[in-house]
Amino acid sequence: MKRGFGSDNHSGASPEIIEAIAMANTGHALAYGDDEWCAKATALFKDCFGPQAEPYFVFNGTGANVMSIDLMCRSHHAVVCAETAHIFVDECGSPQRIVGCKLLPVSTPDGKLTPDLTKSQLHGFGFEHHAQPKAISISQPTELGTLYTIDEISALADLAHSHNMYLHIDGARLSNAAVALDCTFKQMTTDAGVDILSFGGTKNGMLMGESCVVLNAALNADAKYRRKQMTQLCSKMRFIAAQFDAYISAGVWQRNARHSNSMAQMLKAELLKIEQFKQSSDNYAILYPVQANSVFARLPHEVWTSLQKKYFFYDWDEAKNEVRWMCSFDTTEEDILDFVSALKQEIESKTV
Amino acid sequence: MKRGFGSDNHSGASPEIIEAIAMANTGHALAYGDDEWCAKATALFKDCFGPQAEPYFVFNGTGANVMSIDLMCRSHHAVVCAETAHIFVDECGSPQRIVGCKLLPVSTPDGKLTPDLTKSQLHGFGFEHHAQPKAISISQPTELGTLYTIDEISALADLAHSHNMYLHIDGARLSNAAVALDCTFKQMTTDAGVDILSFGGTKNGMLMGESCVVLNAALNADAKYRRKQMTQLCSKMRFIAAQFDAYISAGVWQRNARHSNSMAQMLKAELLKIEQFKQSSDNYAILYPVQANSVFARLPHEVWTSLQKKYFFYDWDEAKNEVRWMCSFDTTEEDILDFVSALKQEIESKTV
Amino acid sequence: MKRGFGSDNHSGASPEIIEAIAMANTGHALAYGDDEWCAKATALFKDCFGPQAEPYFVFNGTGANVMSIDLMCRSHHAVVCAETAHIFVDECGSPQRIVGCKLLPVSTPDGKLTPDLTKSQLHGFGFEHHAQPKAISISQPTELGTLYTIDEISALADLAHSHNMYLHIDGARLSNAAVALDCTFKQMTTDAGVDILSFGGTKNGMLMGESCVVLNAALNADAKYRRKQMTQLCSKMRFIAAQFDAYISAGVWQRNARHSNSMAQMLKAELLKIEQFKQSSDNYAILYPVQANSVFARLPHEVWTSLQKKYFFYDWDEAKNEVRWMCSFDTTEEDILDFVSALKQEIESKTV
Amino acid sequence: MKRGFGSDNHSGASPEIIEAIAMANTGHALAYGDDEWCAKATALFKDCFGPQAEPYFVFNGTGANVMSIDLMCRSHHAVVCAETAHIFVDECGSPQRIVGCKLLPVSTPDGKLTPDLTKSQLHGFGFEHHAQPKAISISQPTELGTLYTIDEISALADLAHSHNMYLHIDGARLSNAAVALDCTFKQMTTDAGVDILSFGGTKNGMLMGESCVVLNAALNADAKYRRKQMTQLCSKMRFIAAQFDAYISAGVWQRNARHSNSMAQMLKAELLKIEQFKQSSDNYAILYPVQANSVFARLPHEVWTSLQKKYFFYDWDEAKNEVRWMCSFDTTEEDILDFVSALKQEIESKTV
Repeated sequence: MKRGFGSDNHSGASPEIIEAIAMANTGHALAYGDDEWCAKATALFKDCFGPQAEPYFVFNGTGANVMSIDLMCRSHHAVVCAETAHIFVDECGSPQRIVGCKLLPVSTPDGKLTPDLTKSQLHGFGFEHHAQPKAISISQPTELGTLYTIDEISALADLAHSHNMYLHIDGARLSNAAVALDCTFKQMTTDAGVDILSFGGTKNGMLMGESCVVLNAALNADAKYRRKQMTQLCSKMRFIAAQFDAYISAGVWQRNARHSNSMAQMLKAELLKIEQFKQSSDNYAILYPVQANSVFARLPHEVWTSLQKKYFFYDWDEAKNEVRWMCSFDTTEEDILDFVSALKQEIESKTV
Repeated sequence: MKRGFGSDNHSGASPEIIEAIAMANTGHALAYGDDEWCAKATALFKDCFGPQAEPYFVFNGTGANVMSIDLMCRSHHAVVCAETAHIFVDECGSPQRIVGCKLLPVSTPDGKLTPDLTKSQLHGFGFEHHAQPKAISISQPTELGTLYTIDEISALADLAHSHNMYLHIDGARLSNAAVALDCTFKQMTTDAGVDILSFGGTKNGMLMGESCVVLNAALNADAKYRRKQMTQLCSKMRFIAAQFDAYISAGVWQRNARHSNSMAQMLKAELLKIEQFKQSSDNYAILYPVQANSVFARLPHEVWTSLQKKYFFYDWDEAKNEVRWMCSFDTTEEDILDFVSALKQEIESKTV
Repeated sequence: MKRGFGSDNHSGASPEIIEAIAMANTGHALAYGDDEWCAKATALFKDCFGPQAEPYFVFNGTGANVMSIDLMCRSHHAVVCAETAHIFVDECGSPQRIVGCKLLPVSTPDGKLTPDLTKSQLHGFGFEHHAQPKAISISQPTELGTLYTIDEISALADLAHSHNMYLHIDGARLSNAAVALDCTFKQMTTDAGVDILSFGGTKNGMLMGESCVVLNAALNADAKYRRKQMTQLCSKMRFIAAQFDAYISAGVWQRNARHSNSMAQMLKAELLKIEQFKQSSDNYAILYPVQANSVFARLPHEVWTSLQKKYFFYDWDEAKNEVRWMCSFDTTEEDILDFVSALKQEIESKTV
Repeated sequence: MKRGFGSDNHSGASPEIIEAIAMANTGHALAYGDDEWCAKATALFKDCFGPQAEPYFVFNGTGANVMSIDLMCRSHHAVVCAETAHIFVDECGSPQRIVGCKLLPVSTPDGKLTPDLTKSQLHGFGFEHHAQPKAISISQPTELGTLYTIDEISALADLAHSHNMYLHIDGARLSNAAVALDCTFKQMTTDAGVDILSFGGTKNGMLMGESCVVLNAALNADAKYRRKQMTQLCSKMRFIAAQFDAYISAGVWQRNARHSNSMAQMLKAELLKIEQFKQSSDNYAILYPVQANSVFARLPHEVWTSLQKKYFFYDWDEAKNEVRWMCSFDTTEEDILDFVSALKQEIESKTV
């Protein structure tokens, strides 16, 4: 398949990841996490997030998110999130089914919750008819490619804690955020007051593997049972841990995220060389600040649907002619030049 | 870690599996199963199980089992199973939580349901106070290392269907059964009337990856949504599919299963060279027919607990001094000789 | 407690209802619905809704609503509803927990879904990441006291059916709607294409008792098991059925609903005699068309909070100074005159 | 319907109960429990069970049981119970669905758990694959009409607490137990170390209404939300509370339970006048100690099936020819004499 801008899930794995798997394939190891690779990976997570951090390795992002919600909430609780949040939009109602709780989606201009936006949902405490708000969940970077500053995260953590609630980060692309903000994982999470975290590897060069990272030790109590019961306990867990070992200790996360972020900047820059995007209009626009590895654009229906015949990518909001172009760790400069060139041709052919 | 007899999850992956992963790590592929590796693996499953078979790749055995139950049952249904069944004993109540249904455990002498044993639970149909029996679930081979003949499976399928119920096989080690019975997968499943199947790879040389295989097409209707919602949809699914490609088309399943089965036979034979096992008593016995890759034994408490200091393995029923020794695809003859030698020493040192 | 305008749940039961209970308290009857009172009540429901209608008696409104959703949806489905819907706002996340499905709330001007508003949520069909829209749920009358015309209900039913979805009515106050629209229950439901219905009695003069009424026979299949499993099966069911017998055959529903509706009209009329309401402003307004038994008003914070010291009633949206005044079957003209008089005094004392 | 021995749910309500409902039907009262009747009933429960007791009124026995389990357990927990327990046998899997937890049924000779029987299930603590035992649930009296002594309850409470578990009593017929043991409710529950209780009214002369009574204050934390979310919050709750007011303060519970217990003794005595029962055999036997209001008997298939044409009652185990005869608060001596006479006739006509 032609390398394109459909999703950072479309790329494969970095060579170090494959090599780490091969290297871990030696002899016997205890199953379900009681092995040396898991011990090493756990230590690396503690280095990254602080000594109280406890990573629970899981298979996929939905697993990490639902496990996080499950540790924060019981079924009569509610989670405030942006209406664009992956947990609300893209998980087929998994939190509702597995946790049984309610999600309270909030409309936002750019995928980011603010304290003010969040407060609109913070009522009904103590009223038994009302699902009790118990967690705020944000995505960093957001599903729209925007970023929270550390201060913005802290403000949401403070808001959460002042209401006896928790703050969760869906960090499926957290590495892209850390690189973009030029901060450590710890500064952006533990130090900012985050209670629990979904830490992604798959979208940034791992084969498969994510981690639910508990930062607030009070949330560890039943974690291992909850993971098992929700079907996210891996038997040969060393093969997830070994990937994280390489991902973190060999700097794969940083190199890959830096690259895909820079590719998004280049894509944006190349798009802005097209007159229509440069001028921005109801027909053509780059939609949000490009802060991570995605670019969102609005362009005429006939243009993007034609372009999709050459490149696979998702419409984000078909009715509004909004599309998403996602850069990967293996996106090349040539990929971008070719893609923008094809786009230009489509624009020209349609506007003649 | 010393190679031992703790679990077939303790071994790593066969070289072909690692190689297949590395080979699949090329360029971009659509995520979530819409790729060429998945297409090929699906075709291979149809070869193995018949053209109506639909494999749904998942991460782990609990995922495959719970998905199977979820496709057969709603929450007011019940599943009849042996009280030794993995779904009843080892999944931390996952079916109860995810599906909300009831399991009806039946006591058996050897881990095998029979029509007569099963019938003890087939009552209360139409009575709203009673969880409605809707599925029979058997493990092939059983958790006790015993096997159903094809006729025995057919008889249970007939019983199920005559009550408007389904028959599920937990085939975490189905390859071991196929090799032992010298039959095809299809003969043991589709042709015997099985409706749905958990097909395992992980315990027999794959890295991670299982499949819920729908044989009764009526169960496909909502399958893709159910898999996603229960958190078992893999994004870079090609890396599970590629393992199955190699597992099936390169004959890994057969070679590995044949080997681990034969190692269990050798282990049994070596044990029977020990006078105490040969004579069989309340203190020493090999417990069930050795038909797949495990050997269950009874031996004095001080003997097996001493042996555990040298080799990791599980007590199966501590109160009864029953232990399980599991052979893997990478168990060697030398492993067995060393292990039995160590056991002999323990026996001698304790019985002096 | 002083009779006021807090809720139609604050009133007791009509004398006929108490009498019917006492009359049914004679000798033995089979439990769980297999008795003569249930047979008679079922026949009455068939008279009201058509011969295919099957009433399932339950304890309360949440029970009727959740049972209705449970019969329409599995956990991977979604229900489109107004963001003011009782099922979304006032049931502590019960549908999410019991059914495991997702609710898709839609912002509306007056509590009423329209086909256009609903269509905003009708996408993602066949996409496994997206909870599949399977039902539209409307409240008749709405939680804002407004009414759907029969044509509006038909249009939503057509929309639902054209997408292989169902239409549910939360009819906790359906009697008030029937009286207001001067139509039969059947015209407003069965004939309009409604698939399933929560039919309320408690808010209109019954002691306790509601009914989930299946109009689309396809939804009956598992109903009795689902009701039992969700804890809504009453043992001495004759005492719910007997209430419905009296409620329907003695015309209690009609008399009570007509009265509470007319009291709401009188309340509105009396309010409009107050200059501030008559002129309508940012400070004072009657908010929605008064079509059933409730009146919503906006008035200054200090006025309504003072009034609450004399009369219990709910703020509807504290931030917006919106309150709800609900008339009951036992509201008297004097109650209204006293209440409006007290309100006038508050207004005068605050505006001096 | 002829008054018989089918179920204590087949009787109606005591006159005091109906009267209490009628008396409570006066004016307005706040909904959902914030009324004077609920306050009074709560005080009465505190009198009966001690000042720390918190009653949560619910609609039915399954509601009380599932709420109790829900307050003790999360989904990864397990409840040990007798395999004859109502929660295991007669609630269509409601605990599994609503709580998501596992029930661990134990075979017993007489419906009673003992510490030894219970210990068979108390293992696997801390092992993530194993649903964690968290509660013991017993029925007092049992579903077989037998009773636990206070000491036996204490012993189970001690066992539970020594494993960080809770003890629950399903007291659907607790009044019958209190009368039979000639003890207070408190002696049998709070003082014996019981943590939570389902307290029944419906089977002993109430119209409808049960109570989940929290004795261990730690279990109150989320109770009100859990009750609402599981659909068991009654709006016009005064009508349940008023029944309990009369039930407790007017001594209805005692009078009714004493009567139905004595009727069971009389039934047993009359049966023993029949030669076949007196001699006891494989064909005829009274099966368990008659300690509450039920009599279990074994008798030939043709006899009991013939008798069922005249009297409705349940076979308890059809295969074993075991039936249950249940006395009610309104059973008369004449009912018993007539029934035993009819039984005699059947025996004679079949044995000629």
